[in-house]
Amino acid sequence: MATFQTLPGFREFYPDVLTRRNHIFRLWRQNARAFGFEEYDAPVLEPLELYKTKSGDEIEAQLFSFTDKGGREVALRPEMTPTVCRLVGEKAATLKRPIKWFSIAEFYRYERAQKGRQRSFFQFNADIFGEPGPEAEIELIALLIQSFTAFGLTEQDFYVRLSDRNLWFFYLEALGLDEPRTRAMLSAIDKHEKLGDDAFKGYAEHFGPLDAGLKAKVLVFLQIKTLAALEKTLASLGGDKLAARLADWKKLLGGLEAMGLARFVGVDLGVVRGLAYYTGFVFEAFDRKGELRALAGGGRYDHLIGKLGYGELSAVGFAIGDVTTGILLDERGLRPKFVEAVDVYTVIGGEAERRAALADIAALRAAGRSVEYPLKDVAFGKQFKLAADSGAKLALIYGGDELARGVVKLRDLTERSEREVPRAQVVEAVREFFSGGT
Amino acid sequence: MATFQTLPGFREFYPDVLTRRNHIFRLWRQNARAFGFEEYDAPVLEPLELYKTKSGDEIEAQLFSFTDKGGREVALRPEMTPTVCRLVGEKAATLKRPIKWFSIAEFYRYERAQKGRQRSFFQFNADIFGEPGPEAEIELIALLIQSFTAFGLTEQDFYVRLSDRNLWFFYLEALGLDEPRTRAMLSAIDKHEKLGDDAFKGYAEHFGPLDAGLKAKVLVFLQIKTLAALEKTLASLGGDKLAARLADWKKLLGGLEAMGLARFVGVDLGVVRGLAYYTGFVFEAFDRKGELRALAGGGRYDHLIGKLGYGELSAVGFAIGDVTTGILLDERGLRPKFVEAVDVYTVIGGEAERRAALADIAALRAAGRSVEYPLKDVAFGKQFKLAADSGAKLALIYGGDELARGVVKLRDLTERSEREVPRAQVVEAVREFFSGGT
Repeated sequence: MATFQTLPGFREFYPDVLTRRNHIFRLWRQNARAFGFEEYDAPVLEPLELYKTKSGDEIEAQLFSFTDKGGREVALRPEMTPTVCRLVGEKAATLKRPIKWFSIAEFYRYERAQKGRQRSFFQFNADIFGEPGPEAEIELIALLIQSFTAFGLTEQDFYVRLSDRNLWFFYLEALGLDEPRTRAMLSAIDKHEKLGDDAFKGYAEHFGPLDAGLKAKVLVFLQIKTLAALEKTLASLGGDKLAARLADWKKLLGGLEAMGLARFVGVDLGVVRGLAYYTGFVFEAFDRKGELRALAGGGRYDHLIGKLGYGELSAVGFAIGDVTTGILLDERGLRPKFVEAVDVYTVIGGEAERRAALADIAALRAAGRSVEYPLKDVAFGKQFKLAADSGAKLALIYGGDELARGVVKLRDLTERSEREVPRAQVVEAVREFFSGGT
Repeated sequence: MATFQTLPGFREFYPDVLTRRNHIFRLWRQNARAFGFEEYDAPVLEPLELYKTKSGDEIEAQLFSFTDKGGREVALRPEMTPTVCRLVGEKAATLKRPIKWFSIAEFYRYERAQKGRQRSFFQFNADIFGEPGPEAEIELIALLIQSFTAFGLTEQDFYVRLSDRNLWFFYLEALGLDEPRTRAMLSAIDKHEKLGDDAFKGYAEHFGPLDAGLKAKVLVFLQIKTLAALEKTLASLGGDKLAARLADWKKLLGGLEAMGLARFVGVDLGVVRGLAYYTGFVFEAFDRKGELRALAGGGRYDHLIGKLGYGELSAVGFAIGDVTTGILLDERGLRPKFVEAVDVYTVIGGEAERRAALADIAALRAAGRSVEYPLKDVAFGKQFKLAADSGAKLALIYGGDELARGVVKLRDLTERSEREVPRAQVVEAVREFFSGGT
């Protein structure tokens, strides 16, 4: 008979693999809480229309979408942003601002499964709603950075490329481009890192060959890597919008510098993020060696909640994926060696001693201690092997001889030392063993 | 513009609701680990055939099933058992026995959404593979019981009804029933609690009116509520199979008694669990008042892994749902009042003081402390109101006057007392404040 396979691109987590995933989730959650973010969760299935409204009808091709038995067009969620906007939009009037929320959840897309591109993946999403100023970006990018440093990664391992779609809009406007030309140019800029000058072909198809002066000015802007260079370039243009935007940049970078995080952030206007709904600062985190796909991405999207039919509410957020983060941790040797070990292994002489052992095992577990024991009778000597294999630090030995004298043997499996305690004091003795340190 | 609703029967979790769910998940996880169970996770989507193979083609009507874009018949998982069997069956040769696994996951079914019956729900699943004897049931039922007592529930709140499909098979065989009649009778017994004697109608339709003597003997068995009564009834029948099964019962109840858990368990042969794949002991947990649906259910299913196409491997498991458990906790007043509070609120004099505050906030958060602050300038007095609202135990005050003297004010928001510390010692002072206990 044929056995059943996991569906293509879906992920199964045996205990050894899940331990590694849980380590990542645990630190993500801890850090989000340290920053005062509240956790939420949401349905795995959403109306297909939610994603079409956000991203356009073409998005359907990438979605795990289907018609349900009730004739509804639905999709397994490919991202959290539309959902969190829906939840926040629904109750915006009653939620205390700024709204700082996070989630850790699985997402799905329908595409040919290949190495590093699964059909299912996890993301840590964090968003701030209701704060239009760059103070929200300071808070959010600080959380993004600590979400990597918490694992032991340093500025030698990763950095955040910071850019600004507003600045591009204002700059291209100052250079005389209308909105359709600006959008086509941003699309070209998005591809420039990968394609070089070929990236401008799409623009040229619609608006004719690119003027050499314009192209030079775009390339100058693309090469800006410092706030000083940005300031200098903008000074030659003038204009209130650009000046105000420069003030926002100074506030954002100044805040991150005050937090001691400037070394993690690089000005890089080559990042514009393809998604048209971003409205201001955008950023992506990458490994310094440039070997991996983006570790994280985010930005400001002040009009999305309004677009979904709710009242306008400013928003900025990021998503970190578990897969690329995991690869980087592996490459840097930053995955702790997890031994999923119980605290105590109980060695049981025979059926006659089992009752006493079971009573104490139940009491220890009720006290929060993790305890393992052989379910069936096993030779005494073999149980010590099982105890060692279990990774437990302490063995409790329920021998007939000891129980006759009203005692239980405690064996320190690290120190290989033994002592006896009266049975009535076993729970207390185990508590002391683990609180005293070994 | 119309806004987007959560799909019918799906659940969204705003932070206040998620906190309650996480409390349940946290205790489930802690207890499973105390019992030496390892956590796994698995795909949310599975081949439809997996569920049909386990439960028959009729199951499809209840499933959230659909055809994916690749033409595959798939279903959102309605339960974990077939999936965990698939995972264990696949690697049975390399997994150390007994295999003790648990998971906490969401499940889906397609049915008309109504009060208390959602289309999505969470379950805590625990299973032991590779141990055919009742020692596995002792371990598993002990975990089941502690999974309720950990919340403060007692034997006055819930109990486990213990039954045995094997015993019914052997008993009905001793009464002269063949296998088709035995299965029809078990189906009647499953409905007897709800329907009374009408439950036997289905049996009568196939096999003619129920013999009065047989019915009396079935009803006698149904009314057994103690091991002694069971022993007495079986003694009159004799036979090796029944004697061996009685020994298993004694071992199981003896083990639970040794663990001090007998008061949570009632013999109740009225539980047979409709699902045909159970092969031995079966059990269900209920609230004592009998007001709620089952809290949990489980049993032995030694042939399912083989049926799915893998080598035979004995198995016993249970599932606890989050919804009924949550209702019971609410009714008993056992939901802790969660205040999702940060540790520290930082009061900032003005823009001039913000840099110093941001530096210390970053350091405190990197040290694992949760810290909130006003993203924008807020009047001094109003910040103390925000600090109180945040639930923080400690306020740090960055005033111009204090910073000029190189100090920061610490305000104990519970005691309403204040003191100053040199800025360089803020992180240490906060650490002491929280470790010293307030």
